[in-house]
Amino acid sequence: MQQRIVVLAGGIGGARFLRGLKSAAPDADITVIGNTGDDIHLFGLKVCPDLDTVMYTLGGGIHEEQGWGRTGETFAVKEELAAYGVGPEWFGLGDRDFATHIVRTQMLGAGYPLSAVTEALCARWQPGVRLLPMSDDRVETHVLVDTEDGRKAVHFQEYWVRMRASVPAHAVVPVGAEQAKPAPGVLEAIAAADVVLFPPSNPVVSVGTILSVPGVREAVAEAAAPVVGLSPIVGDAPVRGMADKVLAAVGVESTAAAVARHYGSGLLDGWLVDTVDAGVVADVEAAGIRCRAVPLMMTDVAATARMASEALALAEEVRGA
Amino acid sequence: MQQRIVVLAGGIGGARFLRGLKSAAPDADITVIGNTGDDIHLFGLKVCPDLDTVMYTLGGGIHEEQGWGRTGETFAVKEELAAYGVGPEWFGLGDRDFATHIVRTQMLGAGYPLSAVTEALCARWQPGVRLLPMSDDRVETHVLVDTEDGRKAVHFQEYWVRMRASVPAHAVVPVGAEQAKPAPGVLEAIAAADVVLFPPSNPVVSVGTILSVPGVREAVAEAAAPVVGLSPIVGDAPVRGMADKVLAAVGVESTAAAVARHYGSGLLDGWLVDTVDAGVVADVEAAGIRCRAVPLMMTDVAATARMASEALALAEEVRGA
Repeated sequence: MQQRIVVLAGGIGGARFLRGLKSAAPDADITVIGNTGDDIHLFGLKVCPDLDTVMYTLGGGIHEEQGWGRTGETFAVKEELAAYGVGPEWFGLGDRDFATHIVRTQMLGAGYPLSAVTEALCARWQPGVRLLPMSDDRVETHVLVDTEDGRKAVHFQEYWVRMRASVPAHAVVPVGAEQAKPAPGVLEAIAAADVVLFPPSNPVVSVGTILSVPGVREAVAEAAAPVVGLSPIVGDAPVRGMADKVLAAVGVESTAAAVARHYGSGLLDGWLVDTVDAGVVADVEAAGIRCRAVPLMMTDVAATARMASEALALAEEVRGA
Repeated sequence: MQQRIVVLAGGIGGARFLRGLKSAAPDADITVIGNTGDDIHLFGLKVCPDLDTVMYTLGGGIHEEQGWGRTGETFAVKEELAAYGVGPEWFGLGDRDFATHIVRTQMLGAGYPLSAVTEALCARWQPGVRLLPMSDDRVETHVLVDTEDGRKAVHFQEYWVRMRASVPAHAVVPVGAEQAKPAPGVLEAIAAADVVLFPPSNPVVSVGTILSVPGVREAVAEAAAPVVGLSPIVGDAPVRGMADKVLAAVGVESTAAAVARHYGSGLLDGWLVDTVDAGVVADVEAAGIRCRAVPLMMTDVAATARMASEALALAEEVRGA
């Protein structure tokens, strides 16, 4: 029978991991629960950076070097908006990308929920996975930072893209999460999964935000399937991005072991750390989480596919235990 | 004292005439009351073709040969929308143009009336005139046509752009006009004008639609200022566009004299016809409208400026009479 894999994914890291997973398990039935906490309204349009990164990456439309946005992109609309004095200018939306947000906003305006809109967009991109937003409800990750005007909450994108996470984050709050409901199919997919994977996505603002939607953490904790994660921290630093900045905000050290303990044995059955972190395997296992050290650098699709295979193998090991 | 000129303008013809008028009367205080009856919602965005044509033409951003849309235009957004299967494809929105509609839609969504939005857009384009939409309320020109599904009303843009006015129009209806109010400043500008001009715009779907907003026709009829129009018909055919198609729908012949009588002496004090139509001057004057035959082809700005000067001279003649 077709293996049912559920992946809780953020943006670039999640998308690249998924490409490796598809290569490692080409016949699997993969459901992706995508983070929507960094969605933002720009120019009156609804932008879903993580969903789009997954969709473009798996659909062959991604800007490969950049990791987000479209390949072959142009910026006429953005230049014109700037000529009108309309910003923000720090968020790089290209012309091709704008079309996605225009279609999405039009469908949302017509009353379709985000899950239906995402399905419609994927009808074009054919990502080869079922891509679900974590929720059809609006959840917006805000970050508490010190500014010239004192301590205040800013949208995650403003913290991440405009400020480049250059100021300390005192707290990370998924605004609206408490009132949000998981999107149709999310809880069902987790309950029916053979394996649940946490890719090396940001444990706070990506996987953490998905888990903050009421019912999702519980569903993962209670899932019959093994839950296996891959460390986004290699040798005490994030593989990419600035995960260390937001880990500090939630009082978690930037180490592969600390992230595993942050998720905890209540959620995680297995955890992959990089070979350079082999020394923490015993430590993680002492926390009740089966742990293996394998190469965790997503240098290309083949290397990423091997990581995915190791995760699936660890899940099998957990299942057989 | 600065001459106050009010112009009721449609799209391409109105915009080109205005460029000539600015050249002929560089010190005048010009208020343009723009037609919004052919506004259309496309891709969830509010598009105002006539206002934009005036703004781009006078602001130096127009595609000169085409007469509408932006110069140096690209079409990435439109191509992407088509890739999503989202139409209509028959309406040619370019990337630069999209930015205008995105800004407008965002401002309307934030609660600004169209007049305030238009003023904000003009802050960039500096058209050198005060551009007012005829109304902040939604008015949509529909055309009654015969289709394969029987007789039905279609949006003016669908009739004009998609069907290219290739089927007979049985009626032209400015839907919503009865409930519309003139935009702030419209009636005041007409009342305070030294001259009111009807450029060679479409007398039915451009000037006619503006006049259909309750209060506007009355204000023009009662204006202290002379009202002078320029015939859009030269030698029994429209100078450009397909004005004859919609004139037929309202039972008006496509002749310079018939259009003057259609407006009537209750509105018009003076009427310019082309020299090829010199034979109708007496006919128009018999209808109580002072008439002159002058060259009316807007071949370039200089020729158009001469037309505008003739219109202003005729207004002076009316005033002195």
